[in-house]
Amino acid sequence: MRKKNKIEVRIAADSGFCFGVKRAMEMAYKYAGEKGPDVYSYHEIIHNPQEVKRLENAGAKHTDRIAKIKKGSRAIISAHGVTPEEEDMLKEKCAGVLDTTCPYVKRIHRIVKKLKEEKYRVVIAGDRDHPEVKGILGYAGAGAVVVSSEAEVKTIKAGEKTGIVSQTTKNKDGFARLACRAIERVFEAPNSEVRVFNTICDATRNRQEAAVKLAKKSDIMIVIGGKNSANTVRLYELCREILKFVYHVESPSEIKKEWFRVRRRAGICAGASTPQRLIEEATELIKSF
Amino acid sequence: MRKKNKIEVRIAADSGFCFGVKRAMEMAYKYAGEKGPDVYSYHEIIHNPQEVKRLENAGAKHTDRIAKIKKGSRAIISAHGVTPEEEDMLKEKCAGVLDTTCPYVKRIHRIVKKLKEEKYRVVIAGDRDHPEVKGILGYAGAGAVVVSSEAEVKTIKAGEKTGIVSQTTKNKDGFARLACRAIERVFEAPNSEVRVFNTICDATRNRQEAAVKLAKKSDIMIVIGGKNSANTVRLYELCREILKFVYHVESPSEIKKEWFRVRRRAGICAGASTPQRLIEEATELIKSF
Repeated sequence: MRKKNKIEVRIAADSGFCFGVKRAMEMAYKYAGEKGPDVYSYHEIIHNPQEVKRLENAGAKHTDRIAKIKKGSRAIISAHGVTPEEEDMLKEKCAGVLDTTCPYVKRIHRIVKKLKEEKYRVVIAGDRDHPEVKGILGYAGAGAVVVSSEAEVKTIKAGEKTGIVSQTTKNKDGFARLACRAIERVFEAPNSEVRVFNTICDATRNRQEAAVKLAKKSDIMIVIGGKNSANTVRLYELCREILKFVYHVESPSEIKKEWFRVRRRAGICAGASTPQRLIEEATELIKSF
Repeated sequence: MRKKNKIEVRIAADSGFCFGVKRAMEMAYKYAGEKGPDVYSYHEIIHNPQEVKRLENAGAKHTDRIAKIKKGSRAIISAHGVTPEEEDMLKEKCAGVLDTTCPYVKRIHRIVKKLKEEKYRVVIAGDRDHPEVKGILGYAGAGAVVVSSEAEVKTIKAGEKTGIVSQTTKNKDGFARLACRAIERVFEAPNSEVRVFNTICDATRNRQEAAVKLAKKSDIMIVIGGKNSANTVRLYELCREILKFVYHVESPSEIKKEWFRVRRRAGICAGASTPQRLIEEATELIKSF
Protein backbone atom coordinates (compact mmCIF):
# COMPACT_ATOMS: atom_id res chain seq x y z
CA MET A 1 0.00 0.00 0.00
CA ARG A 2 1.44 3.39 -0.99
CA LYS A 3 1.87 6.06 1.62
CA LYS A 4 -1.22 8.24 1.88
CA ASN A 5 0.69 11.51 1.84
CA LYS A 6 3.02 10.82 -1.08
CA ILE A 7 2.63 13.26 -4.02
CA GLU A 8 1.99 11.71 -7.40
CA VAL A 9 3.46 13.76 -10.25
CA ARG A 10 2.40 13.21 -13.85
CA ILE A 11 3.56 15.04 -16.97
CA ALA A 12 1.17 15.71 -19.85
CA ALA A 13 1.73 13.35 -22.82
CA ASP A 14 2.54 16.26 -25.15
CA SER A 15 4.55 18.81 -23.26
CA GLY A 16 7.29 21.34 -23.76
CA PHE A 17 9.46 21.87 -26.82
CA CYS A 18 7.76 21.13 -30.11
CA PHE A 19 9.70 19.55 -32.96
CA GLY A 20 10.63 22.91 -34.54
CA VAL A 21 11.77 24.53 -31.30
CA LYS A 22 13.83 21.51 -30.25
CA ARG A 23 15.48 21.39 -33.66
CA ALA A 24 16.26 25.14 -33.65
CA MET A 25 17.80 25.04 -30.17
CA GLU A 26 20.02 22.05 -31.00
CA MET A 27 21.18 23.64 -34.26
CA ALA A 28 21.86 26.99 -32.60
CA TYR A 29 23.88 25.53 -29.69
CA LYS A 30 26.01 23.48 -32.05
CA TYR A 31 26.65 26.55 -34.25
CA ALA A 32 27.45 28.82 -31.29
CA GLY A 33 29.97 26.26 -30.04
CA GLU A 34 31.84 25.98 -33.35
CA LYS A 35 35.05 27.88 -33.93
CA GLY A 36 34.65 31.02 -36.01
CA PRO A 37 33.66 34.69 -35.86
CA ASP A 38 31.18 36.11 -33.33
CA VAL A 39 27.66 34.66 -33.46
CA TYR A 40 24.42 36.70 -33.31
CA SER A 41 20.93 35.33 -32.90
CA TYR A 42 18.74 37.50 -35.12
CA HIS A 43 15.51 37.75 -33.13
CA GLU A 44 14.83 35.56 -30.12
CA ILE A 45 15.74 32.01 -31.15
CA ILE A 46 12.47 30.88 -29.53
CA HIS A 47 9.96 32.75 -27.34
CA ASN A 48 11.47 31.89 -23.97
CA PRO A 49 13.62 34.43 -22.08
CA GLN A 50 15.56 31.79 -20.12
CA GLU A 51 16.50 29.96 -23.32
CA VAL A 52 17.51 33.20 -25.04
CA LYS A 53 19.77 33.88 -22.06
CA ARG A 54 21.24 30.37 -22.16
CA LEU A 55 22.05 30.73 -25.84
CA GLU A 56 23.71 34.09 -25.10
CA ASN A 57 25.83 32.36 -22.45
CA ALA A 58 26.76 29.78 -25.09
CA GLY A 59 28.08 32.62 -27.24
CA ALA A 60 25.21 33.79 -29.47
CA LYS A 61 24.22 37.40 -28.72
CA HIS A 62 20.57 38.21 -29.29
CA THR A 63 19.67 41.24 -31.41
CA ASP A 64 16.58 42.45 -33.27
CA ARG A 65 18.55 44.80 -35.52
CA ILE A 66 20.70 43.71 -38.46
CA ALA A 67 22.56 47.06 -38.16
CA LYS A 68 23.86 45.91 -34.77
CA ILE A 69 25.47 42.81 -36.27
CA LYS A 70 29.19 43.26 -36.96
CA LYS A 71 30.23 42.71 -40.58
CA GLY A 72 31.95 39.37 -41.06
CA SER A 73 30.41 37.74 -38.00
CA ARG A 74 27.96 34.79 -38.03
CA ALA A 75 24.16 34.97 -37.70
CA ILE A 76 21.39 32.59 -36.66
CA ILE A 77 17.90 32.93 -38.13
CA SER A 78 15.33 32.09 -35.44
CA ALA A 79 12.80 29.24 -35.49
CA HIS A 80 10.06 31.66 -36.56
CA GLY A 81 11.85 32.57 -39.79
CA VAL A 82 12.52 35.91 -41.47
CA THR A 83 11.65 37.71 -44.70
CA PRO A 84 13.71 36.92 -47.82
CA GLU A 85 15.04 40.50 -47.68
CA GLU A 86 16.35 39.99 -44.14
CA GLU A 87 17.89 36.69 -45.16
CA ASP A 88 19.66 38.39 -48.10
CA MET A 89 20.92 41.20 -45.85
CA LEU A 90 22.26 38.73 -43.31
CA LYS A 91 23.95 36.65 -45.99
CA GLU A 92 25.57 39.73 -47.48
CA LYS A 93 26.81 41.04 -44.16
CA CYS A 94 27.82 37.84 -42.41
CA ALA A 95 30.55 35.25 -42.92
CA GLY A 96 27.99 32.53 -42.21
CA VAL A 97 24.22 32.26 -41.66
CA LEU A 98 22.47 29.37 -39.89
CA ASP A 99 18.77 29.08 -40.72
CA THR A 100 16.82 27.37 -37.91
CA THR A 101 13.40 28.24 -39.34
CA CYS A 102 10.89 25.53 -38.40
CA PRO A 103 10.30 23.26 -41.43
CA TYR A 104 6.53 23.79 -41.03
CA VAL A 105 7.05 27.54 -41.31
CA LYS A 106 9.42 27.01 -44.24
CA ARG A 107 6.61 25.08 -45.96
CA ILE A 108 4.41 28.20 -45.63
CA HIS A 109 7.20 30.32 -47.16
CA ARG A 110 7.24 27.98 -50.17
CA ILE A 111 3.44 27.98 -50.51
CA VAL A 112 3.25 31.76 -50.30
CA LYS A 113 6.15 32.27 -52.72
CA LYS A 114 4.38 30.05 -55.27
CA LEU A 115 1.05 31.83 -54.73
CA LYS A 116 2.80 35.14 -55.38
CA GLU A 117 4.42 33.82 -58.55
CA GLU A 118 1.05 32.54 -59.77
CA LYS A 119 -0.52 35.98 -59.13
CA TYR A 120 -2.63 35.05 -56.14
CA ARG A 121 -3.37 37.73 -53.58
CA VAL A 122 -2.10 36.28 -50.30
CA VAL A 123 -4.04 36.39 -47.03
CA ILE A 124 -2.27 35.37 -43.81
CA ALA A 125 -4.43 34.47 -40.81
CA GLY A 126 -2.45 35.37 -37.71
CA ASP A 127 -1.05 38.10 -35.48
CA ARG A 128 0.59 40.81 -37.55
CA ASP A 129 3.18 41.52 -34.84
CA HIS A 130 4.35 37.92 -34.56
CA PRO A 131 7.78 37.30 -36.16
CA GLU A 132 6.47 34.18 -37.95
CA VAL A 133 3.76 36.25 -39.66
CA LYS A 134 6.19 39.06 -40.50
CA GLY A 135 8.52 36.54 -42.12
CA ILE A 136 5.70 34.94 -44.17
CA LEU A 137 4.48 38.38 -45.23
CA GLY A 138 7.90 39.03 -46.74
CA TYR A 139 7.30 36.19 -49.21
CA ALA A 140 3.75 37.23 -50.02
CA GLY A 141 4.36 40.29 -52.17
CA ALA A 142 2.35 43.45 -52.77
CA GLY A 143 -1.32 43.38 -51.87
CA ALA A 144 -0.93 40.70 -49.21
CA VAL A 145 -2.90 41.21 -46.01
CA VAL A 146 -2.80 39.82 -42.50
CA VAL A 147 -6.18 39.13 -40.89
CA SER A 148 -6.34 38.44 -37.19
CA SER A 149 -10.09 37.99 -36.83
CA GLU A 150 -13.22 37.20 -38.81
CA ALA A 151 -14.16 40.90 -38.59
CA GLU A 152 -10.98 41.83 -40.44
CA VAL A 153 -11.96 39.69 -43.44
CA LYS A 154 -13.61 42.79 -44.89
CA THR A 155 -10.12 44.15 -45.60
CA ILE A 156 -9.66 41.38 -48.20
CA LYS A 157 -10.30 42.60 -51.71
CA ALA A 158 -12.83 40.67 -53.81
CA GLY A 159 -10.22 39.64 -56.33
CA GLU A 160 -9.90 36.90 -58.89
CA LYS A 161 -7.30 34.71 -57.18
CA THR A 162 -6.78 34.57 -53.44
CA GLY A 163 -4.58 32.20 -51.42
CA ILE A 164 -4.97 31.82 -47.67
CA VAL A 165 -2.49 30.41 -45.14
CA SER A 166 -2.42 30.47 -41.36
CA GLN A 167 0.25 31.08 -38.75
CA THR A 168 1.23 27.56 -37.60
CA THR A 169 0.14 27.99 -33.98
CA LYS A 170 -3.43 29.14 -34.63
CA ASN A 171 -6.56 27.16 -33.84
CA LYS A 172 -7.74 25.05 -36.76
CA ASP A 173 -11.48 25.57 -36.30
CA GLY A 174 -11.00 29.31 -36.02
CA PHE A 175 -8.93 29.28 -39.20
CA ALA A 176 -11.60 27.29 -41.05
CA ARG A 177 -14.25 29.81 -39.97
CA LEU A 178 -12.08 32.71 -41.09
CA ALA A 179 -11.49 30.99 -44.45
CA CYS A 180 -15.27 30.66 -44.88
CA ARG A 181 -15.80 34.38 -44.37
CA ALA A 182 -12.97 35.00 -46.84
CA ILE A 183 -14.65 32.83 -49.48
CA GLU A 184 -17.91 34.76 -49.14
CA ARG A 185 -15.94 38.00 -49.47
CA VAL A 186 -13.86 36.95 -52.49
CA PHE A 187 -16.86 35.39 -54.24
CA GLU A 188 -18.42 38.84 -54.55
CA ALA A 189 -16.28 38.90 -57.71
CA PRO A 190 -17.18 36.52 -60.58
CA ASN A 191 -14.76 33.82 -61.79
CA SER A 192 -12.87 34.10 -58.53
CA GLU A 193 -10.85 31.38 -56.84
CA VAL A 194 -9.81 30.83 -53.24
CA ARG A 195 -7.06 28.41 -52.21
CA VAL A 196 -6.96 27.54 -48.54
CA PHE A 197 -3.94 25.75 -47.09
CA ASN A 198 -4.09 23.93 -43.80
CA THR A 199 -0.77 25.19 -42.40
CA ILE A 200 -1.71 24.70 -38.76
CA CYS A 201 0.80 22.65 -36.78
CA ASP A 202 -0.91 20.10 -34.57
CA ALA A 203 1.69 20.53 -31.80
CA THR A 204 -0.32 23.31 -30.16
CA ARG A 205 -3.57 21.37 -30.17
CA ASN A 206 -1.88 18.16 -29.06
CA ARG A 207 -0.41 20.03 -26.05
CA GLN A 208 -3.82 21.50 -25.22
CA GLU A 209 -5.63 18.17 -25.45
CA ALA A 210 -2.99 16.43 -23.34
CA ALA A 211 -3.13 19.19 -20.69
CA VAL A 212 -6.93 19.02 -20.46
CA LYS A 213 -6.82 15.24 -20.22
CA LEU A 214 -4.28 15.37 -17.38
CA ALA A 215 -6.09 18.20 -15.54
CA LYS A 216 -9.17 15.99 -15.34
CA LYS A 217 -7.14 13.41 -13.40
CA SER A 218 -5.30 15.91 -11.15
CA ASP A 219 -5.90 17.95 -7.99
CA ILE A 220 -3.42 20.63 -9.01
CA MET A 221 -1.80 21.62 -12.31
CA ILE A 222 1.52 23.40 -12.79
CA VAL A 223 1.80 25.10 -16.18
CA ILE A 224 5.40 25.96 -17.04
CA GLY A 225 6.32 28.56 -19.66
CA GLY A 226 7.00 32.22 -20.39
CA LYS A 227 4.40 34.61 -18.98
CA ASN A 228 4.44 36.23 -22.46
CA SER A 229 4.08 32.90 -24.25
CA ALA A 230 0.62 32.88 -25.84
CA ASN A 231 0.40 29.10 -26.05
CA THR A 232 1.41 28.69 -22.38
CA VAL A 233 -1.21 31.21 -21.25
CA ARG A 234 -3.78 29.27 -23.30
CA LEU A 235 -2.78 26.03 -21.54
CA TYR A 236 -3.31 27.77 -18.20
CA GLU A 237 -6.77 28.97 -19.26
CA LEU A 238 -7.85 25.55 -20.48
CA CYS A 239 -6.72 23.87 -17.24
CA ARG A 240 -8.54 26.53 -15.22
CA GLU A 241 -11.76 25.52 -16.95
CA ILE A 242 -11.29 22.04 -15.44
CA LEU A 243 -9.60 22.74 -12.13
CA LYS A 244 -9.41 25.48 -9.51
CA PHE A 245 -5.78 24.95 -8.50
CA VAL A 246 -3.73 25.82 -11.56
CA TYR A 247 -0.45 27.75 -11.33
CA HIS A 248 1.47 29.34 -14.20
CA VAL A 249 5.20 29.55 -13.46
CA GLU A 250 8.17 30.52 -15.60
CA SER A 251 10.63 28.57 -13.52
CA PRO A 252 10.45 25.76 -10.90
CA SER A 253 11.75 28.21 -8.26
CA GLU A 254 8.32 29.86 -8.25
CA ILE A 255 6.62 26.64 -7.17
CA LYS A 256 5.50 26.77 -3.51
CA LYS A 257 5.41 23.79 -1.17
CA GLU A 258 2.16 24.84 0.50
CA TRP A 259 0.24 24.46 -2.76
CA PHE A 260 0.62 20.71 -2.32
CA ARG A 261 -0.32 20.45 1.36
CA VAL A 262 -3.67 18.82 0.66
CA ARG A 263 -3.44 18.29 -3.10
CA ARG A 264 -1.60 15.06 -3.82
CA ARG A 265 -2.27 14.38 -7.52
CA ALA A 266 -0.10 16.91 -9.34
CA GLY A 267 -0.01 17.39 -13.11
CA ILE A 268 2.61 19.25 -15.12
CA CYS A 269 2.23 20.66 -18.59
CA ALA A 270 4.39 23.12 -20.51
CA GLY A 271 4.24 25.39 -23.54
CA ALA A 272 5.95 24.62 -26.83
CA SER A 273 8.92 26.85 -25.95
CA THR A 274 9.50 25.38 -22.48
CA PRO A 275 12.67 23.27 -22.25
CA GLN A 276 12.56 19.70 -20.98
CA ARG A 277 14.98 20.46 -18.12
CA LEU A 278 12.47 22.87 -16.48
CA ILE A 279 9.84 20.14 -16.60
CA GLU A 280 12.29 17.69 -15.03
CA GLU A 281 13.38 20.16 -12.33
CA ALA A 282 9.76 20.89 -11.45
CA THR A 283 8.99 17.16 -11.25
CA GLU A 284 11.88 16.49 -8.89
CA LEU A 285 11.07 19.50 -6.73
CA ILE A 286 7.42 18.54 -6.28
CA LYS A 287 8.34 14.95 -5.51
CA SER A 288 10.68 16.21 -2.76
CA PHE A 289 7.86 18.01 -0.92
CA MET B 1 -42.89 67.59 -75.45
CA ARG B 2 -43.98 63.93 -75.60
CA LYS B 3 -47.67 63.11 -75.76
CA LYS B 4 -49.12 62.62 -72.31
CA ASN B 5 -50.97 59.40 -73.12
CA LYS B 6 -48.20 57.53 -74.99
CA ILE B 7 -47.13 54.26 -73.34
CA GLU B 8 -43.45 54.01 -72.53
CA VAL B 9 -42.17 50.42 -72.74
CA ARG B 10 -38.85 49.47 -71.19
CA ILE B 11 -37.22 46.06 -71.11
CA ALA B 12 -35.17 45.00 -68.09
CA ALA B 13 -31.41 45.30 -68.73
CA ASP B 14 -30.97 41.57 -68.17
CA SER B 15 -33.88 39.69 -69.60
CA GLY B 16 -34.70 36.39 -71.30
CA PHE B 17 -32.13 34.04 -72.80
CA CYS B 18 -28.84 34.14 -70.98
CA PHE B 19 -25.65 34.53 -73.00
CA GLY B 20 -24.96 30.79 -73.20
CA VAL B 21 -28.49 29.81 -74.21
CA LYS B 22 -28.69 32.54 -76.88
CA ARG B 23 -25.32 31.56 -78.31
CA ALA B 24 -26.20 27.84 -78.40
CA MET B 25 -29.53 28.45 -80.14
CA GLU B 26 -27.99 30.71 -82.79
CA MET B 27 -25.16 28.27 -83.47
CA ALA B 28 -27.55 25.30 -83.65
CA TYR B 29 -29.99 27.00 -86.04
CA LYS B 30 -27.20 28.04 -88.36
CA TYR B 31 -25.74 24.52 -88.36
CA ALA B 32 -29.11 22.84 -88.92
CA GLY B 33 -29.71 25.13 -91.91
CA GLU B 34 -26.37 24.37 -93.60
CA LYS B 35 -26.14 21.82 -96.43
CA GLY B 36 -24.84 18.42 -95.36
CA PRO B 37 -25.82 15.12 -93.74
CA ASP B 38 -28.66 14.78 -91.20
CA VAL B 39 -28.29 16.76 -87.99
CA TYR B 40 -28.92 15.43 -84.47
CA SER B 41 -29.09 17.45 -81.29
CA TYR B 42 -27.43 15.29 -78.63
CA HIS B 43 -29.50 16.08 -75.50
CA GLU B 44 -31.97 18.97 -75.39
CA ILE B 45 -30.19 21.98 -76.85
CA ILE B 46 -31.56 24.06 -73.92
CA HIS B 47 -34.13 23.24 -71.23
CA ASN B 48 -37.18 24.60 -73.03
CA PRO B 49 -39.59 22.20 -74.82
CA GLN B 50 -40.86 24.85 -77.29
CA GLU B 51 -37.33 25.68 -78.33
CA VAL B 52 -36.37 22.01 -78.68
CA LYS B 53 -39.41 21.60 -80.96
CA ARG B 54 -38.46 24.65 -83.00
CA LEU B 55 -34.96 23.30 -83.55
CA GLU B 56 -36.42 19.95 -84.64
CA ASN B 57 -38.57 21.82 -87.16
CA ALA B 58 -35.40 23.50 -88.39
CA GLY B 59 -33.94 20.04 -89.07
CA ALA B 60 -32.06 18.94 -85.93
CA LYS B 61 -33.58 15.82 -84.37
CA HIS B 62 -33.25 15.55 -80.61
CA THR B 63 -31.86 12.36 -79.09
CA ASP B 64 -30.36 11.33 -75.76
CA ARG B 65 -28.62 8.25 -77.19
CA ILE B 66 -25.48 8.28 -79.31
CA ALA B 67 -26.48 4.78 -80.59
CA LYS B 68 -29.51 6.38 -82.24
CA ILE B 69 -27.35 8.75 -84.28
CA LYS B 70 -26.70 7.49 -87.82
CA LYS B 71 -23.03 7.08 -88.74
CA GLY B 72 -21.80 9.86 -90.99
CA SER B 73 -24.47 12.34 -89.91
CA ARG B 74 -23.85 15.58 -88.01
CA ALA B 75 -24.28 16.17 -84.27
CA ILE B 76 -24.81 19.16 -82.01
CA ILE B 77 -23.50 19.14 -78.44
CA SER B 78 -26.00 20.99 -76.21
CA ALA B 79 -25.36 24.16 -74.19
CA HIS B 80 -24.86 22.09 -71.04
CA GLY B 81 -21.87 20.22 -72.49
CA VAL B 82 -20.92 16.54 -72.44
CA THR B 83 -18.16 14.30 -71.10
CA PRO B 84 -14.91 14.04 -73.10
CA GLU B 85 -15.79 10.39 -73.80
CA GLU B 86 -19.13 11.38 -75.36
CA GLU B 87 -17.41 14.06 -77.40
CA ASP B 88 -14.88 11.50 -78.70
CA MET B 89 -17.65 9.04 -79.58
CA LEU B 90 -19.61 11.72 -81.45
CA LYS B 91 -16.51 12.85 -83.34
CA GLU B 92 -15.70 9.28 -84.32
CA LYS B 93 -19.21 8.50 -85.49
CA CYS B 94 -20.22 11.76 -87.14
CA ALA B 95 -19.10 13.67 -90.22
CA GLY B 96 -19.25 16.87 -88.21
CA VAL B 97 -19.79 17.93 -84.57
CA LEU B 98 -20.93 21.37 -83.44
CA ASP B 99 -20.11 22.13 -79.82
CA THR B 100 -22.53 24.71 -78.36
CA THR B 101 -21.35 24.17 -74.77
CA CYS B 102 -21.74 27.44 -72.81
CA PRO B 103 -18.28 29.05 -72.45
CA TYR B 104 -18.87 29.32 -68.69
CA VAL B 105 -19.40 25.56 -68.54
CA LYS B 106 -16.37 25.06 -70.78
CA ARG B 107 -14.34 27.06 -68.25
CA ILE B 108 -15.36 24.54 -65.58
CA HIS B 109 -14.24 21.68 -67.86
CA ARG B 110 -10.80 23.33 -68.13
CA ILE B 111 -10.56 23.94 -64.37
CA VAL B 112 -11.55 20.37 -63.52
CA LYS B 113 -9.21 18.89 -66.15
CA LYS B 114 -6.31 20.86 -64.66
CA LEU B 115 -7.27 19.86 -61.10
CA LYS B 116 -7.26 16.23 -62.19
CA GLU B 117 -3.84 16.60 -63.84
CA GLU B 118 -2.47 18.21 -60.67
CA LYS B 119 -3.81 15.33 -58.54
CA TYR B 120 -6.59 17.20 -56.79
CA ARG B 121 -9.66 15.25 -55.74
CA VAL B 122 -12.55 17.04 -57.47
CA VAL B 123 -15.83 17.94 -55.75
CA ILE B 124 -18.73 19.23 -57.85
CA ALA B 125 -21.53 21.08 -56.06
CA GLY B 126 -24.74 20.52 -58.01
CA ASP B 127 -27.48 18.11 -59.06
CA ARG B 128 -25.98 14.77 -60.08
CA ASP B 129 -28.73 14.20 -62.68
CA HIS B 130 -28.22 17.52 -64.46
CA PRO B 131 -26.47 17.15 -67.84
CA GLU B 132 -24.09 20.00 -67.00
CA VAL B 133 -22.91 18.15 -63.89
CA LYS B 134 -22.63 14.83 -65.75
CA GLY B 135 -20.46 16.51 -68.37
CA ILE B 136 -18.18 18.13 -65.76
CA LEU B 137 -17.87 14.83 -63.90
CA GLY B 138 -16.48 13.27 -67.08
CA TYR B 139 -13.47 15.62 -66.82
CA ALA B 140 -12.95 15.10 -63.10
CA GLY B 141 -11.43 11.63 -63.04
CA ALA B 142 -11.53 8.84 -60.46
CA GLY B 143 -12.46 9.75 -56.92
CA ALA B 144 -14.51 12.78 -57.93
CA VAL B 145 -17.78 13.29 -56.07
CA VAL B 146 -20.94 15.31 -56.63
CA VAL B 147 -22.43 16.90 -53.52
CA SER B 148 -25.91 18.35 -53.70
CA SER B 149 -26.25 19.54 -50.10
CA GLU B 150 -24.20 20.48 -47.03
CA ALA B 151 -25.17 17.13 -45.50
CA GLU B 152 -23.48 15.28 -48.34
CA VAL B 153 -20.15 16.94 -47.58
CA LYS B 154 -19.38 13.99 -45.29
CA THR B 155 -18.86 11.90 -48.47
CA ILE B 156 -15.75 13.98 -49.22
CA LYS B 157 -12.56 12.29 -48.11
CA ALA B 158 -10.21 14.22 -45.86
CA GLY B 159 -7.44 14.23 -48.45
CA GLU B 160 -4.40 16.35 -49.10
CA LYS B 161 -5.59 18.23 -52.17
CA THR B 162 -9.22 18.96 -52.95
CA GLY B 163 -10.68 21.21 -55.66
CA ILE B 164 -14.30 22.38 -55.58
CA VAL B 165 -16.43 23.78 -58.42
CA SER B 166 -20.15 24.47 -58.71
CA GLN B 167 -22.78 23.94 -61.38
CA THR B 168 -23.16 27.38 -63.05
CA THR B 169 -26.80 27.96 -62.11
CA LYS B 170 -26.52 27.39 -58.36
CA ASN B 171 -26.96 30.04 -55.70
CA LYS B 172 -23.65 31.64 -54.74
CA ASP B 173 -24.28 31.91 -51.01
CA GLY B 174 -25.34 28.27 -50.83
CA PHE B 175 -22.18 27.25 -52.65
CA ALA B 176 -20.02 29.30 -50.28
CA ARG B 177 -21.64 27.58 -47.28
CA LEU B 178 -21.08 24.16 -48.83
CA ALA B 179 -17.44 25.04 -49.51
CA CYS B 180 -17.04 25.99 -45.83
CA ARG B 181 -18.28 22.60 -44.67
CA ALA B 182 -15.91 21.00 -47.19
CA ILE B 183 -12.94 22.92 -45.76
CA GLU B 184 -13.73 21.76 -42.23
CA ARG B 185 -13.98 18.22 -43.56
CA VAL B 186 -10.75 18.26 -45.59
CA PHE B 187 -8.82 20.02 -42.82
CA GLU B 188 -9.22 16.97 -40.61
CA ALA B 189 -6.07 15.90 -42.50
CA PRO B 190 -2.84 17.84 -41.85
CA ASN B 191 -1.06 19.75 -44.64
CA SER B 192 -4.26 19.68 -46.67
CA GLU B 193 -5.34 22.20 -49.28
CA VAL B 194 -8.74 23.19 -50.63
CA ARG B 195 -9.21 25.18 -53.83
CA VAL B 196 -12.65 26.69 -54.31
CA PHE B 197 -13.62 28.13 -57.69
CA ASN B 198 -16.49 30.55 -58.07
CA THR B 199 -18.02 29.02 -61.21
CA ILE B 200 -21.50 30.41 -60.59
CA CYS B 201 -22.93 32.36 -63.53
CA ASP B 202 -24.47 35.64 -62.43
CA ALA B 203 -27.22 35.49 -65.12
CA THR B 204 -29.99 34.47 -62.68
CA ARG B 205 -29.14 37.07 -60.09
CA ASN B 206 -28.57 39.74 -62.73
CA ARG B 207 -32.08 39.11 -64.13
CA GLN B 208 -33.57 39.48 -60.67
CA GLU B 209 -31.69 42.69 -59.91
CA ALA B 210 -32.56 44.20 -63.31
CA ALA B 211 -36.27 43.33 -62.88
CA VAL B 212 -36.39 44.96 -59.42
CA LYS B 213 -34.61 48.07 -60.73
CA LEU B 214 -37.06 48.43 -63.61
CA ALA B 215 -40.11 47.75 -61.42
CA LYS B 216 -39.12 50.74 -59.28
CA LYS B 217 -39.39 53.00 -62.35
CA SER B 218 -42.59 51.46 -63.75
CA ASP B 219 -46.35 51.64 -63.17
CA ILE B 220 -46.89 48.10 -64.47
CA MET B 221 -44.62 45.09 -65.04
CA ILE B 222 -45.12 42.22 -67.49
CA VAL B 223 -43.13 39.10 -66.58
CA ILE B 224 -42.81 36.67 -69.49
CA GLY B 225 -41.95 32.98 -69.07
CA GLY B 226 -43.29 29.49 -68.36
CA LYS B 227 -45.74 29.30 -65.46
CA ASN B 228 -43.67 26.33 -64.27
CA SER B 229 -40.36 28.15 -64.70
CA ALA B 230 -38.91 28.63 -61.21
CA ASN B 231 -36.76 31.58 -62.15
CA THR B 232 -39.70 33.35 -63.90
CA VAL B 233 -42.00 32.87 -60.90
CA ARG B 234 -39.25 34.34 -58.70
CA LEU B 235 -39.05 37.39 -60.98
CA TYR B 236 -42.82 37.86 -60.58
CA GLU B 237 -42.58 37.62 -56.79
CA LEU B 238 -39.73 40.13 -56.60
CA CYS B 239 -41.60 42.64 -58.78
CA ARG B 240 -44.74 42.22 -56.66
CA GLU B 241 -42.75 43.32 -53.63
CA ILE B 242 -42.20 46.65 -55.42
CA LEU B 243 -45.36 47.14 -57.43
CA LYS B 244 -49.05 46.20 -57.26
CA PHE B 245 -49.61 45.78 -61.01
CA VAL B 246 -47.47 42.84 -62.07
CA TYR B 247 -48.67 40.23 -64.58
CA HIS B 248 -47.04 36.89 -65.31
CA VAL B 249 -47.77 35.69 -68.88
CA GLU B 250 -46.46 32.77 -70.91
CA SER B 251 -47.21 34.42 -74.23
CA PRO B 252 -47.91 37.99 -75.42
CA SER B 253 -51.44 36.92 -76.41
CA GLU B 254 -52.35 36.89 -72.70
CA ILE B 255 -51.60 40.61 -72.34
CA LYS B 256 -54.77 42.76 -71.97
CA LYS B 257 -55.15 46.30 -73.26
CA GLU B 258 -57.15 47.50 -70.25
CA TRP B 259 -54.19 46.88 -67.92
CA PHE B 260 -52.53 49.94 -69.51
CA ARG B 261 -55.50 52.32 -69.42
CA VAL B 262 -54.08 54.47 -66.62
CA ARG B 263 -50.61 52.92 -66.30
CA ARG B 264 -48.29 54.45 -68.88
CA ARG B 265 -44.81 53.38 -67.75
CA ALA B 266 -44.61 49.68 -68.63
CA GLY B 267 -41.69 47.37 -67.82
CA ILE B 268 -40.97 43.95 -69.29
CA CYS B 269 -38.76 41.23 -67.87
CA ALA B 270 -38.35 37.55 -68.73
CA GLY B 271 -36.85 34.31 -67.38
CA ALA B 272 -33.57 32.85 -68.64
CA SER B 273 -35.38 30.33 -70.88
CA THR B 274 -37.69 32.88 -72.51
CA PRO B 275 -36.79 33.58 -76.14
CA GLN B 276 -36.20 37.16 -77.29
CA ARG B 277 -38.98 37.01 -79.88
CA LEU B 278 -41.64 36.77 -77.13
CA ILE B 279 -40.17 39.86 -75.46
CA GLU B 280 -40.20 41.72 -78.80
CA GLU B 281 -43.77 40.67 -79.59
CA ALA B 282 -44.93 41.85 -76.18
CA THR B 283 -43.13 45.17 -76.64
CA GLU B 284 -44.74 45.84 -80.02
CA LEU B 285 -48.17 44.82 -78.74
CA ILE B 286 -48.05 47.13 -75.74
CA LYS B 287 -46.76 50.02 -77.87
CA SER B 288 -49.76 49.53 -80.19
CA PHE B 289 -52.25 50.10 -77.37
